[in-house]
Amino acid sequence: MAYGFCSLRPTLTSLFSSHALAPTLQWRSSSLRISRALSAATVPISSSSSFTWDDFFEIGRKESASPQSASSDLTGFLEKIDRCNRGSEKLAEFIPFVIEEQIVGYIHKGFTEYLREFHDVFTFTQNGCVGDYVTVNLMFEKPEDRTGAVADVIKILGDKGIIPGIRNELYPVKPSFHSSALFSLERAAAPYFGLKGYGVHMNGYVERDGQKFLWIGKRSLTKSTYPGMLDHLVAGGLPHGISCGDNLVKECDEEAGISKVIADRAIPVGAVSYMDIDQYCFKRDVLFCYDLKLPEDFVPKNQDGEVESFKLIPVAQVANVIRETSFFKANCSLVIIDFLFRHGFIRPESSGYLDLFRSLRNGDCS
Amino acid sequence: MAYGFCSLRPTLTSLFSSHALAPTLQWRSSSLRISRALSAATVPISSSSSFTWDDFFEIGRKESASPQSASSDLTGFLEKIDRCNRGSEKLAEFIPFVIEEQIVGYIHKGFTEYLREFHDVFTFTQNGCVGDYVTVNLMFEKPEDRTGAVADVIKILGDKGIIPGIRNELYPVKPSFHSSALFSLERAAAPYFGLKGYGVHMNGYVERDGQKFLWIGKRSLTKSTYPGMLDHLVAGGLPHGISCGDNLVKECDEEAGISKVIADRAIPVGAVSYMDIDQYCFKRDVLFCYDLKLPEDFVPKNQDGEVESFKLIPVAQVANVIRETSFFKANCSLVIIDFLFRHGFIRPESSGYLDLFRSLRNGDCS
Repeated sequence: MAYGFCSLRPTLTSLFSSHALAPTLQWRSSSLRISRALSAATVPISSSSSFTWDDFFEIGRKESASPQSASSDLTGFLEKIDRCNRGSEKLAEFIPFVIEEQIVGYIHKGFTEYLREFHDVFTFTQNGCVGDYVTVNLMFEKPEDRTGAVADVIKILGDKGIIPGIRNELYPVKPSFHSSALFSLERAAAPYFGLKGYGVHMNGYVERDGQKFLWIGKRSLTKSTYPGMLDHLVAGGLPHGISCGDNLVKECDEEAGISKVIADRAIPVGAVSYMDIDQYCFKRDVLFCYDLKLPEDFVPKNQDGEVESFKLIPVAQVANVIRETSFFKANCSLVIIDFLFRHGFIRPESSGYLDLFRSLRNGDCS
Repeated sequence: MAYGFCSLRPTLTSLFSSHALAPTLQWRSSSLRISRALSAATVPISSSSSFTWDDFFEIGRKESASPQSASSDLTGFLEKIDRCNRGSEKLAEFIPFVIEEQIVGYIHKGFTEYLREFHDVFTFTQNGCVGDYVTVNLMFEKPEDRTGAVADVIKILGDKGIIPGIRNELYPVKPSFHSSALFSLERAAAPYFGLKGYGVHMNGYVERDGQKFLWIGKRSLTKSTYPGMLDHLVAGGLPHGISCGDNLVKECDEEAGISKVIADRAIPVGAVSYMDIDQYCFKRDVLFCYDLKLPEDFVPKNQDGEVESFKLIPVAQVANVIRETSFFKANCSLVIIDFLFRHGFIRPESSGYLDLFRSLRNGDCS
């Protein structure tokens, strides 16, 4: 056991100890410093989600005389990235959640108080390398044993309203993307345990006379999350047991009526990551990004009722709206800023280019 | 002064203190761990630079039946990235080089012994936050004063052969890309002071029947650095006082005879970074990456005699050669692996996808 922890030290220290997390914090403070330095040039940010497409176009058309280049002022983009990476100053309030000597999540010290009464399931312990941490009692040796034992606890916490919105959907618990699941846990509980989350986001675009346009969706006003906000043509969380590519094809069909023949042309282009703390919840998300160049005459058709409408918009206008408003669901902004980099709409000559580029992967991209 | 250092602490700790550098080290050890885990599948690496194009094609054609996908075994790519990021275990042998309370470089403790005798120019001091560091005597207040004083020292060290290959070319000393230069220093001395270095690398490619091809150059056998090795169509260090875009246009003309009209179509697509320690030299490079889609009938013409020949090669073959050989100049491999990611030749389904992607920016990308 002691040996196990020694071999584990790099992982543990890299992911949580206060000094090892410092670089992420510093990227953020560096971004903020630049934001502030440039703030004289910042335009007011609209944060309402009750906007219309007309509002969008009014803002989008500013500066759209330069179709191949977003403005060189990157402040508004940095602000959007900061919105996905809140609460880094509260990192010290969390302790690692460890399974089989690997960190799989982080739990707020306040939330651990709810777990302490279940001492037959959760063990609170201490290690010289990492300090306090929580684990599942070693008597639960196999993944399915842990899944069952933890599910009983989550059920009680769900009934008490401590973990709201139980979905009865299991979520894999693993230290990194290609690792095996060490057990599974109710999806609604995942942020309370600070588990890694993965998703696929696709930039659906059209090229016409050398100019690029992005298909943008407006979420239905009846959606429980982010109603009325702007979204990618296709995006979704990655369920357990399906590959990124297969999930994308499935989402292409459900969200935009894109046939498999066309969806198969989508190109994986990398990933973005962020870490966001909101009270007891710690999101540590990695989004796999895709580009799909669509035929000029393609028109998306939402199949699942979750999208109110789609519009095809020049990329420079999308860039303006991201910079100057909060109309987009926050993590979509991140993926679109990555698109702006890869397609040359943001250029090295702009002050803060490398800071912005680096901040696209502020989270634990593993 | 004390106040100045307090405000400086994040920069200092983020860039050098042993714990703050830990994440970079851990990325690398993580890559290595994966490399080793996958090593059963590793093919022997050819490290000779006396290969021919025939050797290239023999290796490149393996697995080229799948033109849109590099093999899912990413081990060979990880090894190439490690070659650009050597010596991280020796970081503790370096101390910061500080100007105007900002870290601008790192100097090997062994090399500082040569500087100690010039105590009118260099000051060795100590600060609670960062430990020992070297600075230029505060009596040299202005950049031009520092430039002159340090030049006198470098001249003596050059004459003694301690810094070989003096070029009489000045190099800006600055903490990050968009900062102002705090003084200038002989280019050959830059790695001895661990200064940040910047370059532009361009993937020149052609698309034919939906298949992508990269133009690859073979360096002249008479070049003093990396003779006979494979290189980008266009790449070069960024001289002081010229923008990335303007430098790229200039290099396009000199290295490949690409007209300004075509070169202006090159798209900036992001950056890669690495840090490499070799004895007293510490390279901390950031390469701005560009893609240029060339006309199918374009044929490069080297103007400066530094390239022996160019070939247009299917991307999947280039990928095979990078994985299985060391024919490419090491930092070109990095930029081409980034191209493979952005163009979908490496896919999220491959084990180690996120580790490889993250390691493309192992260095201080600022």
